[in-house]
Amino acid sequence: MTRNNWSVPETEVLQRVHERLDADSADVLATIVDVEGNAYRRPGAKMLLDEAGDGVGSITAGCLEDDLLAAAQSVREDGQPELLTYDLMDDEDDVWGLGVGCNGIIDVLLEPLTETYRPAVEAFADGRNVAVLTVLEDSKGALDRGDRAYYHPGDGGLTTPDGEPAPAWPDELADPAKDLAERGRADTIELDSQDRRLAVFIDGLAAPTELVIFGSGHDVGPVTELAAKNDFRVTVVGFRGSVDLEDRFPDADDTLTTSPAAVDDDLELGDRTYAVVMTHNFIDDRLTVEQLLDASVGYIGLMGPHKRFEKMLAEFEDEGRSFDDETLASLYTPIGLDLGGGSPYQIAHSIVAEILAVSNDRTPRHLRTREGHIHDRITVDSPPQ
Amino acid sequence: MTRNNWSVPETEVLQRVHERLDADSADVLATIVDVEGNAYRRPGAKMLLDEAGDGVGSITAGCLEDDLLAAAQSVREDGQPELLTYDLMDDEDDVWGLGVGCNGIIDVLLEPLTETYRPAVEAFADGRNVAVLTVLEDSKGALDRGDRAYYHPGDGGLTTPDGEPAPAWPDELADPAKDLAERGRADTIELDSQDRRLAVFIDGLAAPTELVIFGSGHDVGPVTELAAKNDFRVTVVGFRGSVDLEDRFPDADDTLTTSPAAVDDDLELGDRTYAVVMTHNFIDDRLTVEQLLDASVGYIGLMGPHKRFEKMLAEFEDEGRSFDDETLASLYTPIGLDLGGGSPYQIAHSIVAEILAVSNDRTPRHLRTREGHIHDRITVDSPPQ
Repeated sequence: MTRNNWSVPETEVLQRVHERLDADSADVLATIVDVEGNAYRRPGAKMLLDEAGDGVGSITAGCLEDDLLAAAQSVREDGQPELLTYDLMDDEDDVWGLGVGCNGIIDVLLEPLTETYRPAVEAFADGRNVAVLTVLEDSKGALDRGDRAYYHPGDGGLTTPDGEPAPAWPDELADPAKDLAERGRADTIELDSQDRRLAVFIDGLAAPTELVIFGSGHDVGPVTELAAKNDFRVTVVGFRGSVDLEDRFPDADDTLTTSPAAVDDDLELGDRTYAVVMTHNFIDDRLTVEQLLDASVGYIGLMGPHKRFEKMLAEFEDEGRSFDDETLASLYTPIGLDLGGGSPYQIAHSIVAEILAVSNDRTPRHLRTREGHIHDRITVDSPPQ
Repeated sequence: MTRNNWSVPETEVLQRVHERLDADSADVLATIVDVEGNAYRRPGAKMLLDEAGDGVGSITAGCLEDDLLAAAQSVREDGQPELLTYDLMDDEDDVWGLGVGCNGIIDVLLEPLTETYRPAVEAFADGRNVAVLTVLEDSKGALDRGDRAYYHPGDGGLTTPDGEPAPAWPDELADPAKDLAERGRADTIELDSQDRRLAVFIDGLAAPTELVIFGSGHDVGPVTELAAKNDFRVTVVGFRGSVDLEDRFPDADDTLTTSPAAVDDDLELGDRTYAVVMTHNFIDDRLTVEQLLDASVGYIGLMGPHKRFEKMLAEFEDEGRSFDDETLASLYTPIGLDLGGGSPYQIAHSIVAEILAVSNDRTPRHLRTREGHIHDRITVDSPPQ
């Protein structure tokens, strides 16, 4: 297996699932449904295992994959889902990978890829949030392991893969499903009542964040490439004479050639839109930024020094436009995190790092300082000489 | 021209120069030697233009490249270096790209690629710092535009491309050359005396930072790939049974299979070494970290939760080892910047962002906050209604 198959962006795993469904293949889908202790991947991490023994996506950093390939073979033959528990912890400690090499206790669901998964990949392809509910255990036997329901925002309740109401599924699963779908997170929910113990894995698939990049210079390429690897859905927008955008930016999911005044007409802008403005043309940038501010998009990164934006604001003022602080808070200029470095890739890395931090609502800083500064925590005394 | 040619990492531009020198080609090297105002690229940015009209590397975000290709043709025909000035500023303002679309005033030196450039690429390939000095103007006429000298740390003074002393070059150029070589920065130096005005472009090429990644899991792939794009020289170190490292991590400059106890013997570790420790095996990580701390390397990023490192420190203590705060300050765990996101590429992006920040001595934060918070600077009043 190649590096490319294991380390693909998450969006590509779901795209591949879609393709394999269409091809009516006998693949097996492996999903982390629960993790105890610290693991490299979280619940919801997926790997698709094909008949040839190749995998797309990753569940660990490599420790379990060989074993999973063997287990997938048996699932393929039996046609029945299996729930595997890997206990990779040291007996006396819950520290990640102590001694033995991997990642705590990991529950993995292996199941034949079937049409019941199609609503998930279709919602993802359409840019709609969705929660996929899969039965792990039902003591009552009303549902079988691998049985599936969906929560589509707007539907109000759970539905079967065919879009019908799902009476066998308790209503109280709808709230956590809604929450997980919006957040793009996954968790296993256990419902215990007198006569029934039901464990359901809820996999929230949030639509990828839409990133619109305004500009068609060479410097757009690395930003597009790195953003796509980080699971943003990227649209490159060129103005006027921009040609061959698709060929020039092969990592973009979409391209558009329009005029700077028509940005708001030609794109669906909203608070979930992230925008990078790097046309290198002041007037084009200004027209674009004005429409993005008007649409209250979630993030506007504007390339260039702060002084350039001040000039832009002054021109807005001359034209009788003003924007309140809350609206302007979404505008980041100079764009990017302060990482130093000035090559095209280094600039792009800093831009995409900023977009990741903003989209995940994080304050950019070293993770070690997030847990408290390392020096406050170290308790090693000088040993006796 | 493809995206890949324009947006290559800086290291690849110099590698290509090396290849083209070996091929005795008639390429033209374009280098930004001076910038006024804010520009996308800094002095020292390079583009190599071949006979077929293709370019490798980038000087702007695309505004000048077509013009440069034409100018390169004339330099190739004449065999003489040319100094071009592009004034892309608005007459009344020094704000970047106001109205016209590009980047301030940029001076670009175009010169035929000759053997006089070989010491530069050889030093770079060997991992040695070097400063390349190139004459832009000499009023006295003792030196011609394009004449070249070198500063190699350790030599003490300037030398010709043949390694001989360079008496026609003023001694006072050695100090700025030393400084720029260490910092990897470029600048044009002007020496004015009664009888001579000499302008020399000094291009400091610092050896790429060495990044050693300990581990051979699938998660090593994205870190290797993104670090290489950001101009780190990457070595992947696998332990024991690690095979096919070269094939599995094609972006690595070097690979090594060794044992965890022999890390310090098999690698040249020093304060310029950056290390990422992600073997996912506690004992392997501990043996590696101990040797890295002993060698006082510049950066150690350790994957895993902070608690795991505390366990490691406790074991060091049990063995009578201790490390002072200054040494421990180089250790970052959990590794990476706090950007959120948990896919292999998102984790790798956060790791490489941290390494960029540390290697460039930056405090990771939004660039907009570096200039003062945007809200302190906005001066738009509500316009009259």
